Amino acid sequence: MTRAHRLAAAVEFIHTATLLHDDVVDDSDERRGKDSANIIFGNEASVLVGDFLFSRAFQLMVADGNLDVLRILSDASAIIAEGEVLQLSAQNNLTTTMDDYAAVIEGKTASLFAAACEVGPVIAEQDEKIISAMRDYGMNLGMAFQIIDDVLDYNANRAKLGKAVGDDFREGKMTAPVILAIQKANKEEKDFWQRTLGDKNQKDGDLETAQTLIAKYDTLVQGMELARGYGDKAIQNLAHIPDSHLKKTLVDLVSFTISREY
Amino acid sequence: MTRAHRLAAAVEFIHTATLLHDDVVDDSDERRGKDSANIIFGNEASVLVGDFLFSRAFQLMVADGNLDVLRILSDASAIIAEGEVLQLSAQNNLTTTMDDYAAVIEGKTASLFAAACEVGPVIAEQDEKIISAMRDYGMNLGMAFQIIDDVLDYNANRAKLGKAVGDDFREGKMTAPVILAIQKANKEEKDFWQRTLGDKNQKDGDLETAQTLIAKYDTLVQGMELARGYGDKAIQNLAHIPDSHLKKTLVDLVSFTISREY
Repeated sequence: MTRAHRLAAAVEFIHTATLLHDDVVDDSDERRGKDSANIIFGNEASVLVGDFLFSRAFQLMVADGNLDVLRILSDASAIIAEGEVLQLSAQNNLTTTMDDYAAVIEGKTASLFAAACEVGPVIAEQDEKIISAMRDYGMNLGMAFQIIDDVLDYNANRAKLGKAVGDDFREGKMTAPVILAIQKANKEEKDFWQRTLGDKNQKDGDLETAQTLIAKYDTLVQGMELARGYGDKAIQNLAHIPDSHLKKTLVDLVSFTISREY
Repeated sequence: MTRAHRLAAAVEFIHTATLLHDDVVDDSDERRGKDSANIIFGNEASVLVGDFLFSRAFQLMVADGNLDVLRILSDASAIIAEGEVLQLSAQNNLTTTMDDYAAVIEGKTASLFAAACEVGPVIAEQDEKIISAMRDYGMNLGMAFQIIDDVLDYNANRAKLGKAVGDDFREGKMTAPVILAIQKANKEEKDFWQRTLGDKNQKDGDLETAQTLIAKYDTLVQGMELARGYGDKAIQNLAHIPDSHLKKTLVDLVSFTISREY
């Protein structure tokens, strides 16, 4: 196993650990189109196996032995946990701003993309400029990815997404599509958002009403434009990386992230 | 902050993270005589704050920068998680042996005691013999601690213990007092243990019956003798450590662990 493989596995273990814990925290029942682990094995196993994977990730990093890598990935892990806590406190809070939202998704999602992209050039002993460019690329890609994910939660073909549409609505998560719609809302619409997201008092048909309001203010398109802005920045971050097959893959990954429907 | 303080904090953070997660997994409502965090803040916050503390522990270790220390503590973290998973699979399983039990408590408890005791002489640059003796001391102390903890769960003055007596019984945890009583059980008693622990079918008065059977076979005393055996080994492990005020504290800690009532 090369260092790159080992560290890629460490990142994947951290990611999987956060997904296992997320599904417990959000009480989700689907992940990638299948029953989630908490449904099949219970919350107990999901929490403990998440802890195990997290520990294994650190063992892999320690086996690599590079303190810079350890610092990058342990910092990212702490930031992810902070981002998740931040998201929990923003939940059901209608005063959440787009800046608050950006802080949440930078923490819970983009920081791991950034760390993963930074570790590559660090172990390849590239100079500081390349390392920093790759970190920025990862951060911007991660932001784009999460915004699209949040847009899809109100829009996607359920089967393609592999999870239930409207999960974020049911959980009262304050994501771009609703934050932008609440900013434009009239009195009656504000009451609707307050009842459904703020007071968690939802009934049949509410998701459809939410989708109608989101369509009225076109906030899915605004979310996609926001994501596209981050995607453009990610591509700009690659400007001084020498051309190669791998660079092209990184560029393509941005387009894929922006245009994915699942 | 000295290295010793920083690393002691790292161990304490790992420990606290596991307690937060444990209380979610066991659905506990008390910890140290007060409402547990999952009761006050919810499972979500307990899972996420546990993850955060775990990450902060690794940041503290990385800040220390000693790869041996990182290896010792990340190995311990993985072993703890494995021990917890092992405990989960032994739960409600009446065929659990005393060897299985020893493996569970070594993983979930004693390995962190061992790691914590090993890190001290490592950063003090003591020779391998001292490091290994301190590790063994910690392991034996941890085994004694956990066995006493499991004995107290059937015996202690509830107020002193700071948690409900009978938690382990209600959760179907296979600990020394019940494993030893099941080994001696007659047909009728076996049926009782099968119903209450194996089939999780408990009713009022069952805890009292369990305590009566435990008293009949004197298994709390046997558990305490087992713990005392580990405590004696822990003191023997200190034989080649030079006498000092601190060594006396380590010896006293063993007596305290064995004779505590809470």
